Amino acid sequence: MLVLYGVFVRYDQSANARYEKNDTVWETNEFYLRYSTFQDVHVMVFVGFGFLMTFLKFYGYSSVAFNLLVAALGLQWAVLIQGFLHQDEHHKGVICVGIMSMINADFCSAAVLISFGAVLGKTSPVQLLIMAIIEETIFAINEHIAINVLQVNDAGGSMVIHVFGAYFGLMVSRILYREGLSDGHSSECATYHSDIFAMIGTLYLWLFWPSFNSAIALKGDDQMRAVINTYFSLAACVLATYAASSLLDKHGRLDMVHIQNATLAGGVAVGTCADMMLSPFGAMILGMLAGFISTAGYKFLSPVLASKLNVQDTCGVHNLHGIPGLIAAVAGALVAAMASEETYGKSLYLTFPQLIPSDKDDPAFLALHGEFNSIKPGSGRSPAKQGAFQIAELGVTLAMALAGGAITGLILRLPWWGQPSDPNCFSDHLYWELPEDSKEDDEAETRQHTVLQMKGGENNS
Amino acid sequence: MLVLYGVFVRYDQSANARYEKNDTVWETNEFYLRYSTFQDVHVMVFVGFGFLMTFLKFYGYSSVAFNLLVAALGLQWAVLIQGFLHQDEHHKGVICVGIMSMINADFCSAAVLISFGAVLGKTSPVQLLIMAIIEETIFAINEHIAINVLQVNDAGGSMVIHVFGAYFGLMVSRILYREGLSDGHSSECATYHSDIFAMIGTLYLWLFWPSFNSAIALKGDDQMRAVINTYFSLAACVLATYAASSLLDKHGRLDMVHIQNATLAGGVAVGTCADMMLSPFGAMILGMLAGFISTAGYKFLSPVLASKLNVQDTCGVHNLHGIPGLIAAVAGALVAAMASEETYGKSLYLTFPQLIPSDKDDPAFLALHGEFNSIKPGSGRSPAKQGAFQIAELGVTLAMALAGGAITGLILRLPWWGQPSDPNCFSDHLYWELPEDSKEDDEAETRQHTVLQMKGGENNS
Amino acid sequence: MLVLYGVFVRYDQSANARYEKNDTVWETNEFYLRYSTFQDVHVMVFVGFGFLMTFLKFYGYSSVAFNLLVAALGLQWAVLIQGFLHQDEHHKGVICVGIMSMINADFCSAAVLISFGAVLGKTSPVQLLIMAIIEETIFAINEHIAINVLQVNDAGGSMVIHVFGAYFGLMVSRILYREGLSDGHSSECATYHSDIFAMIGTLYLWLFWPSFNSAIALKGDDQMRAVINTYFSLAACVLATYAASSLLDKHGRLDMVHIQNATLAGGVAVGTCADMMLSPFGAMILGMLAGFISTAGYKFLSPVLASKLNVQDTCGVHNLHGIPGLIAAVAGALVAAMASEETYGKSLYLTFPQLIPSDKDDPAFLALHGEFNSIKPGSGRSPAKQGAFQIAELGVTLAMALAGGAITGLILRLPWWGQPSDPNCFSDHLYWELPEDSKEDDEAETRQHTVLQMKGGENNS
Repeated sequence: MLVLYGVFVRYDQSANARYEKNDTVWETNEFYLRYSTFQDVHVMVFVGFGFLMTFLKFYGYSSVAFNLLVAALGLQWAVLIQGFLHQDEHHKGVICVGIMSMINADFCSAAVLISFGAVLGKTSPVQLLIMAIIEETIFAINEHIAINVLQVNDAGGSMVIHVFGAYFGLMVSRILYREGLSDGHSSECATYHSDIFAMIGTLYLWLFWPSFNSAIALKGDDQMRAVINTYFSLAACVLATYAASSLLDKHGRLDMVHIQNATLAGGVAVGTCADMMLSPFGAMILGMLAGFISTAGYKFLSPVLASKLNVQDTCGVHNLHGIPGLIAAVAGALVAAMASEETYGKSLYLTFPQLIPSDKDDPAFLALHGEFNSIKPGSGRSPAKQGAFQIAELGVTLAMALAGGAITGLILRLPWWGQPSDPNCFSDHLYWELPEDSKEDDEAETRQHTVLQMKGGENNS
Repeated sequence: MLVLYGVFVRYDQSANARYEKNDTVWETNEFYLRYSTFQDVHVMVFVGFGFLMTFLKFYGYSSVAFNLLVAALGLQWAVLIQGFLHQDEHHKGVICVGIMSMINADFCSAAVLISFGAVLGKTSPVQLLIMAIIEETIFAINEHIAINVLQVNDAGGSMVIHVFGAYFGLMVSRILYREGLSDGHSSECATYHSDIFAMIGTLYLWLFWPSFNSAIALKGDDQMRAVINTYFSLAACVLATYAASSLLDKHGRLDMVHIQNATLAGGVAVGTCADMMLSPFGAMILGMLAGFISTAGYKFLSPVLASKLNVQDTCGVHNLHGIPGLIAAVAGALVAAMASEETYGKSLYLTFPQLIPSDKDDPAFLALHGEFNSIKPGSGRSPAKQGAFQIAELGVTLAMALAGGAITGLILRLPWWGQPSDPNCFSDHLYWELPEDSKEDDEAETRQHTVLQMKGGENNS
Repeated sequence: MLVLYGVFVRYDQSANARYEKNDTVWETNEFYLRYSTFQDVHVMVFVGFGFLMTFLKFYGYSSVAFNLLVAALGLQWAVLIQGFLHQDEHHKGVICVGIMSMINADFCSAAVLISFGAVLGKTSPVQLLIMAIIEETIFAINEHIAINVLQVNDAGGSMVIHVFGAYFGLMVSRILYREGLSDGHSSECATYHSDIFAMIGTLYLWLFWPSFNSAIALKGDDQMRAVINTYFSLAACVLATYAASSLLDKHGRLDMVHIQNATLAGGVAVGTCADMMLSPFGAMILGMLAGFISTAGYKFLSPVLASKLNVQDTCGVHNLHGIPGLIAAVAGALVAAMASEETYGKSLYLTFPQLIPSDKDDPAFLALHGEFNSIKPGSGRSPAKQGAFQIAELGVTLAMALAGGAITGLILRLPWWGQPSDPNCFSDHLYWELPEDSKEDDEAETRQHTVLQMKGGENNS
């Protein structure tokens, strides 16, 4: 990989001393426009995802540290693979890195971390690194199809990142199905303090999700709109989650798993249409819907997936990223199909460049060109057709995620990668020098599970 | 609420595709000017307040999760109620949301979270939600009086947010007085790790307070000044707090409660005059004063309030927000009264628009208009008169907070809201599915308190 | 100190109402350019350093709270001492504070916190405050030599902050050598949860290090380049650290100490040349090198330093800041020596103003002046000569750090500062009111160490 960097990777213009004179004004240097948003996304990827997974009682070291490892590898590979596929026409054969490639690399890593959530506690670090390399490669191809072939809008990546990452991970988990864990594992639970650590992750994801959904939106009003929509969707989602969690419990109590996860579903559900004229009201509807469905998914769907479909989804990524991502895709298609000049003014053609006439001599094109100098011919689609293309991309994403996950799962089943045995799942002691206080507890639980499993085996035989 | 959003809430101009063309320059889109500051405030409200309250040993889930719930409801209600009261004259009947309304909604939620601190551990989530709705409504009226009627300056909201939130919460706590807790509760204390969790809250509040006090200040030097003043006030406040904490202990030890809370008093104390020409020296004086008085308040005043006035203030918000808010109000009045063209130049009339002559044909107004095109006639006050109005607003704030808190307290005493019994206070087990490790400890403490209370009851009788 | 602030400290122009009219545009108000970067650095100093040191099982309160105390004092003193030494020629006798002085004060405090890491658990707060005052004074002199005398580039302060802070602290630790701790202390270790708290520190340092290295770089491409270089260096460093940690363990396990610390070495190693045309490839090489060497240092070098040189380095700052800082200094000298117009274009003379001809009438100078109006005559150095000056500054830094650390250590050995006895090291109970749960454990460990030491003493005698 180092060699590839040496050969191909260069600074982009905004970072190259040759082309800039340090007197750059705000409008022309994307750094000032997007750096603080990038840092928010960066915090989400490393602190948000990392701490969200620390809820397991004996897997805190691995959760936060493997998250760091996978994301650090992931972003390096993503810069390469995204760079190859989205090459600038002026710089053939060279990958130019700047603030946008850093954001996109973080996005690509986020997809892998979502998949990581599905297999959390059941894979070795080597397996995770292999998964990262394969998944990101397929991710970049799907992203290429979304942007350049089908030309869909997906500002917050709800299809490209969340649906893809979730179904990829679920498929990997399905292929790596462990019968020995079908009755659970005594370490697959939280402690009081591990749940509070996980809330650090939840809160940073929740707070910075507006930055996630607006990070690569067009500057100006599109970014602002993505922020507002996500903000309201998340706020409404919190209320729906608390209500659902309490209603679904027979004693009316809340479940920390729901609070940690389903409160975030609103950010996913609004992702595809975040930069469109959804209205705060529409955003809140999406957020409430996502909060209810996600909570219900944790309560009812996850056990069924595990017992009927043999999909063991440690973090419930299907409920947090999968279903809300599907909601986002459908909502995005609908809002795109309803887009009109009446609502957007001429900005319609900036937010949806696919609607620009394809013919350079079309009077409609010339009129637009009078308004926006930098405009280029588009695909001349109607809004309804754009909606159809959005749904097509959802199909492509699902197909590539499931196929890619299956292939990856099969590769990960090869016996060389140090996959932990069933009793050693959900436990740090296999990978870490542990302090005294946890060493004994952790090993006791593992032994207990081994004994239980042996008994279970005897009963079955 | 959803219906109200559907009917009234719209994007403001900076987020509306109709009015913008994505080529927005920095000067005209408030998004780039204030988004990173908004995110700092957002972190303070959700991580800062949330984790600051996790110090209780068995109330960590509730602290951080009810904080999220209350703030998420709070910001949605605040957008509506603040929108109705501060309508743009060009958009009657419609609430326009943008970055400023998001910051103001977070501010409004912050006031409720301050009140939450006073009643922490003693109220059900339903009671908190009711309190949020009532408190924010009164908050918005008081804010309307401050901005539009009395026309005072309060950049960091030390009067409008901190004094209001603190005395509102203290009054609610007074009305909900629990005699059964007058000798304390065995769970009303910290553990080693819960105190470290609380320090996460403290640090984020401390670090981002300069953003809080500058978030809605005028752009340019006013924002910069608010940052500098808050930075120095907080730094000086830390030294004063450590010194006071050690001096007030008979063994010279430090008390974690003081470090977690009183170190922040400097941010409150400098809030009202943060954007004025206070000078770094003046900021440090205010910070030191606040640190000393706040620490002494935790040591001496809180026990008296509880025993003599029956005000049970769980987090000591009187010492962190109440008294430092009073200091801020007086300091703000003094600094405003001393404002002069000599110190501010012509900018005096931007920072204090109330000082602008009220007559359009006044030669003084015309001279100002020559300098600042966008200027409008003001109230023609003298600086001294402005100082008096500042003090008047403090009186209004205190009156509305105490009256509002009393009414709210009486409503919360109605038997329908699921208020916890005395032994169940300060305990997560009433509202949460708990992990094994904490379930037993938590219930043991509750039982113990029940027994103690029964014994106490026998002794009393 | 308060008096000094009253007499000398004033707002700088960007914050002074007299000179600004709130219509400031982006280009002229550094606030908007650097405030979000400043906040990232601020988080690193208070949350990053503070939580990184919470890994000790009974020293969590002291780690995070003494960090806050030392940094809060440190930044106040730094504003004064840096202000005196870097006075603006237009404002003699007055210290002007603005966003740059706030960033520089945080940097100066960071050096003290690095030294704090070396003596962590073995010094009283009074000793730390004395160390802060002396160390910052010497820091500012060294910084003055670097900037104004030797005129070197050190964007991320790897020499001026990291090498200086590390060797200063190591020397203090050497002078304060405790024979009684030569066999370790039963409290000098982590617990499961204290290690996860420490990861909060690690992650925030890791995430915001690009902001640290770019905070005071020239605006535009230099800042962007510093961000990119640091981002890639850190990502590569993570992979190298995990590989090295696993390879150096006989069971192939990872060591949390390495993950918490060595993953950050890449940020230090790239610090000096972060804003130069290093290329992403060069940044990754530096990061990998730093990760490997730092991890190996924790494994092999630290025990040798302790046993042979009597340097007891609690946090291993030699491995995280010392050696990577040396790498940074050498890399910076090399990259500076290879700088050319071919690579940088005319921007060469902005990034390296020392290369500008010293004569105002030199045709080369006049040509540059035509390109950049604001340019001033430089020192007319060749790139190679600049490289030599860079190395000279490394020598000066080492000399001042070691001499300053020795003097400080001797002063700290005076018996008046309440230095803890050996058994009381690494323990909060000396300085804090502790909650019930930790009080007994903590005191038991201290007693145990006392007994062990007495036995050891008997054996030795």
